[in-house]
Amino acid sequence: MTHSTYLMQLEQKLAAYSMASTEKKDIDMTSKSVPLKPVTKVAVGGGTFGNKLDGVYLAKMWLKDPSELQRQTFNATPCLVNPRAVKAMARFTEKDINTCFLESILSAPNTEDTPYEEKRAKELNLIFGPKGSPNAYDLLLDMHSNPSNLGATIILDNAENYLGMHMAHYVQNHFPFLKTYIYLNMAPKDTSGRITTIVRCGITLEIGPVGLDILRADAFKHMRNLVKCCLDFTDKFNKGTTFPAFETEAYQFFGLEYYPLDSDGEISAMVHPNLQGKDYLPQKPGDPILLSFDGKIIPYNGNRTVYPVFVNDQSMKILKAAFVKTDKLKFSIPAIQVMK
Amino acid sequence: MTHSTYLMQLEQKLAAYSMASTEKKDIDMTSKSVPLKPVTKVAVGGGTFGNKLDGVYLAKMWLKDPSELQRQTFNATPCLVNPRAVKAMARFTEKDINTCFLESILSAPNTEDTPYEEKRAKELNLIFGPKGSPNAYDLLLDMHSNPSNLGATIILDNAENYLGMHMAHYVQNHFPFLKTYIYLNMAPKDTSGRITTIVRCGITLEIGPVGLDILRADAFKHMRNLVKCCLDFTDKFNKGTTFPAFETEAYQFFGLEYYPLDSDGEISAMVHPNLQGKDYLPQKPGDPILLSFDGKIIPYNGNRTVYPVFVNDQSMKILKAAFVKTDKLKFSIPAIQVMK
Repeated sequence: MTHSTYLMQLEQKLAAYSMASTEKKDIDMTSKSVPLKPVTKVAVGGGTFGNKLDGVYLAKMWLKDPSELQRQTFNATPCLVNPRAVKAMARFTEKDINTCFLESILSAPNTEDTPYEEKRAKELNLIFGPKGSPNAYDLLLDMHSNPSNLGATIILDNAENYLGMHMAHYVQNHFPFLKTYIYLNMAPKDTSGRITTIVRCGITLEIGPVGLDILRADAFKHMRNLVKCCLDFTDKFNKGTTFPAFETEAYQFFGLEYYPLDSDGEISAMVHPNLQGKDYLPQKPGDPILLSFDGKIIPYNGNRTVYPVFVNDQSMKILKAAFVKTDKLKFSIPAIQVMK
Repeated sequence: MTHSTYLMQLEQKLAAYSMASTEKKDIDMTSKSVPLKPVTKVAVGGGTFGNKLDGVYLAKMWLKDPSELQRQTFNATPCLVNPRAVKAMARFTEKDINTCFLESILSAPNTEDTPYEEKRAKELNLIFGPKGSPNAYDLLLDMHSNPSNLGATIILDNAENYLGMHMAHYVQNHFPFLKTYIYLNMAPKDTSGRITTIVRCGITLEIGPVGLDILRADAFKHMRNLVKCCLDFTDKFNKGTTFPAFETEAYQFFGLEYYPLDSDGEISAMVHPNLQGKDYLPQKPGDPILLSFDGKIIPYNGNRTVYPVFVNDQSMKILKAAFVKTDKLKFSIPAIQVMK
């Protein structure tokens, strides 16, 4: 697959995101709790990208000894998502695996030309999916680290994922001295190729800033604690705890901020030093966000304050974008309790 | 080439380094200046590793417009060292190009199995070398960025490279508010496969911490200034300026600190949080340097204070080492002047 085909696919996916983000629905806020199905089939993945090492080494450790992933109401299954990319210490070997969990790919027969990552996605879909099936796993925690200054970020598809929102809120309360952000990627399951879409509730955990191909003891420890905390929440939920309604802020995707390109289609600017490391901090229209190679400041030209996320991340570089644009919104989430 | 063959080759190279580091010679300190040949054939390389983006984008910029590299006594030639790895945003595609500039590789005919990087090394050797020939370029500045906390680091083969030591000293004085370190890799030209060994005086410039695959405006600017400063020095040198004798500190390679391995040959520890980002800071015997996955602190067990460099770098990960061990030494460098 050529780079440009890959880019085109990503662009199409992003167009789908954008459409989705315009279809905002009101969150149902009721005084009584929403009954949700128990969460007994649980997986914890690492190495979706082979160069994000905290998740890789945690998955490897738990594959050897999964006792830390066991709770009274379930035993979570550890998984090394893309072992070939892990070996290569690369994001992927033939194709970004987090674009491969699409119905069209998962249902196609393998041929000689099928990229490794598509084959691996099909294997994983059989284990943890199938995507969209009532037999799919209930929960997948996908562990990532990130060069951007994400602190701890919990990525959900949208705020109607009440289980995910409550889990994120539980994590926020559990680590009061660490900034834990909720990022809503607004990616509809049917047009997103992420691994998190093959289960009922897929959640991505990010820790940053952690450089690519770097294993940091502090991030390793914090990711380990995040996973423990999510599993503790899930166990409590299964045992019948009522989690009360709450209000919280979350950062909702609404687009990408692209770099200007030169006549060869190459980027001709960088993230402005004032913005580097400033994920989740407000940037007003007119604030400097890019700096061209010849030293010109490029201000933000949006029509409202933006909250940049994934600033100067590898995924952004692939898309020739500087950051993901989000709105900071307040959500009211109803109480939840396990279905009797 | 398998990963283990690659590792073996690196290990052999390191054994050679170690041997070299035991053959210390006294620096010749005289009151009159040492005459050195003029430096008129100058190259500036970026993209030796495709995932170190400051050098990549500077090289691309200068290839379009090299006017910034022109001085009265020479015009420096910009070069994108490994364009295929740049395209792949990877360290390399088939083989680390900075292991390919060995006589044995450069003189071997190409076959069907010759890795891309070996072929590219041969091309570059014809342009900027040939290695060991009196026709080789006088100076090559190789621009790298690094995830380790290197500040600005100037890498020389050894302190007898007076031109390089004076250039480094000039840079140190030119940027008094920025820490500029001199690192001596002690790699003999004949057993080192680095690109810097094909010219008379090869110098690697590192900026860190900068994550892999990240283009940072601040690092881009500082690398640009470093190169300008090195070229200014060279121009002054060619014009007859006498650079007086001086004393300086430099960090001299003496080995690697390896990670402990588990029964599968996988690393079983990480850099201790106390050491992360602490490049060039002294660690005494007994100081915590590693943390095992099960939480045990591993102290430094050397027999003297060590100055770790390249802490938790990608190159270290490939070698299953946590850092390069150096001694901090004081060197007396004689005055130099261009040969009449």
